[in-house]
Amino acid sequence: MNKLLIVGTVAFDAIETPFAKTDKILGGAATYIGLSASYFNLQSAIVSVVGDDFPQEHLDLLTARNIDISGLEVVKGGKTFFWSGRYHNDLNSRDTLDTQLNVLADFQPKVPQNFKNSDVVMLGNLHPLVQSSVIDQMGKKPKLVVLDTMNFWMDCALPELLDVIKRVDVITINDEEARQLSGEYSLVKAAKKIHAMGPKYVVIKKGEHGALLFHDKEVFFAPALPLEEVFDPTGAGDTFAGGFAGFITQSENVSFENMKNAIIHGSNLASFCVEKFGTERMIDLDKEEVLSRLKQFKSLTQFDIEL
Amino acid sequence: MNKLLIVGTVAFDAIETPFAKTDKILGGAATYIGLSASYFNLQSAIVSVVGDDFPQEHLDLLTARNIDISGLEVVKGGKTFFWSGRYHNDLNSRDTLDTQLNVLADFQPKVPQNFKNSDVVMLGNLHPLVQSSVIDQMGKKPKLVVLDTMNFWMDCALPELLDVIKRVDVITINDEEARQLSGEYSLVKAAKKIHAMGPKYVVIKKGEHGALLFHDKEVFFAPALPLEEVFDPTGAGDTFAGGFAGFITQSENVSFENMKNAIIHGSNLASFCVEKFGTERMIDLDKEEVLSRLKQFKSLTQFDIEL
Repeated sequence: MNKLLIVGTVAFDAIETPFAKTDKILGGAATYIGLSASYFNLQSAIVSVVGDDFPQEHLDLLTARNIDISGLEVVKGGKTFFWSGRYHNDLNSRDTLDTQLNVLADFQPKVPQNFKNSDVVMLGNLHPLVQSSVIDQMGKKPKLVVLDTMNFWMDCALPELLDVIKRVDVITINDEEARQLSGEYSLVKAAKKIHAMGPKYVVIKKGEHGALLFHDKEVFFAPALPLEEVFDPTGAGDTFAGGFAGFITQSENVSFENMKNAIIHGSNLASFCVEKFGTERMIDLDKEEVLSRLKQFKSLTQFDIEL
Repeated sequence: MNKLLIVGTVAFDAIETPFAKTDKILGGAATYIGLSASYFNLQSAIVSVVGDDFPQEHLDLLTARNIDISGLEVVKGGKTFFWSGRYHNDLNSRDTLDTQLNVLADFQPKVPQNFKNSDVVMLGNLHPLVQSSVIDQMGKKPKLVVLDTMNFWMDCALPELLDVIKRVDVITINDEEARQLSGEYSLVKAAKKIHAMGPKYVVIKKGEHGALLFHDKEVFFAPALPLEEVFDPTGAGDTFAGGFAGFITQSENVSFENMKNAIIHGSNLASFCVEKFGTERMIDLDKEEVLSRLKQFKSLTQFDIEL
């Protein structure tokens, strides 16, 4: 089985939407990526850090998904990273209410020995220096390195972010972040500038408006599945990235044509994530549901104009 | 050849975008629909009205596209409908600066005798009573009646609008209008409510975010082509509708599967419309360019996941 190494936050989230509100629940980029990638046939490991306030049941949940957590450091006496946010009525934008870095502040990632030969590395949202350090620790060059990041790092660690962006094959960011990073409003122009920063493939996530994959002069688009209700968008972008990286890992094929399929798999998994609070839907999701909705994606987008 | 009957405004537009500004130029829903539909193999006619301030060269332009203008009334001493608007920086929203109904105020549409047996009727944006009157005048039931409308009529002629909506097969409106008409924020829910008002097919146009086609429990999505520059969105929705109706007319096939193709043709033509001011790009566009971009739409959306 091919190996996927996942880096990113493992966290507590407190979320407010127009419909409801949670206390501290399981969250974090690596958590969503790991759960999403677990729908593919692969071996995965998470590199991250939590405090000893992090419940054993959450760790058990990851292990039950065959996610290796030997690289998930538990800091004695430390507190787990905490994020709190409130979504606006359209669910497309949100305000951060609180961010407590806690154990993340001094995190030194350690890649488990048996994942230093991973086929794919998914660098989820975290400090760019942590992302770089993980690339440094790889024993052999991975087939594909995918990076996800956020506007937060553009604001407070841009030189370090630009350094790690140079070193990856694929970058996935949302439309507003692509505009901020490139200084271009047009996403086509933004993708070109980001290409020039290093990544051969640029994925721009547009939330409910789908995702674009750019490569040289080619472009592919996957819609989000039109849903009756979006309950909580938290983690959708990470779930998308996890599905993308997971499918690439399973298929061992890093061609542009296969990345189109990976984008569809990512969009498909993300469409479930938003149906319930936090990781709830990704935990009770079974493979038959995933397959059935993939068929919906096909009829949603495929047409038969002969050219 | 199959026949397409087009109803809608023929107008002067004055447009301001963040990049440039025009004086009175050729505009109007029927104009854009007619130009767009002229890329298909069909006979078309426009039912509309202008004043005698409307230049002969504009009439000649329509005739040169094989559009029958015997139903385009020229009112002696009358002034042509005038609309003026200013687009915001994102080009996704606009303010109406001025609307002068002029000859539209008392317009009584007359369908030319030889188009009373049209295969497809495209009711472009106009007063719902005018749209209804055209349906009344048809000598035989058309294979398909498509209606486009605007929030303006929802505000000031809702009962008449609901009456004509009951009588059509397909409605095309934008996302904000779908929300206003249905009272639902979710476009899936909005489409269901609009179905219940009459139309078997509901097309929701999302501008740069593409278009959705709903039918019973099925849904199809066509993206807008990602463009480096959008110069002027005026007429894009009408160009889309004209491409949709034009392709259906040519193909004589009103199945859901064929409507998917029609949506793609509409999106394809609309992607040209926004590249220059007003009708400029649609006037210099040739069929090879249309075909070539259709191939881009195919590679933009098609993938090969086997299920």
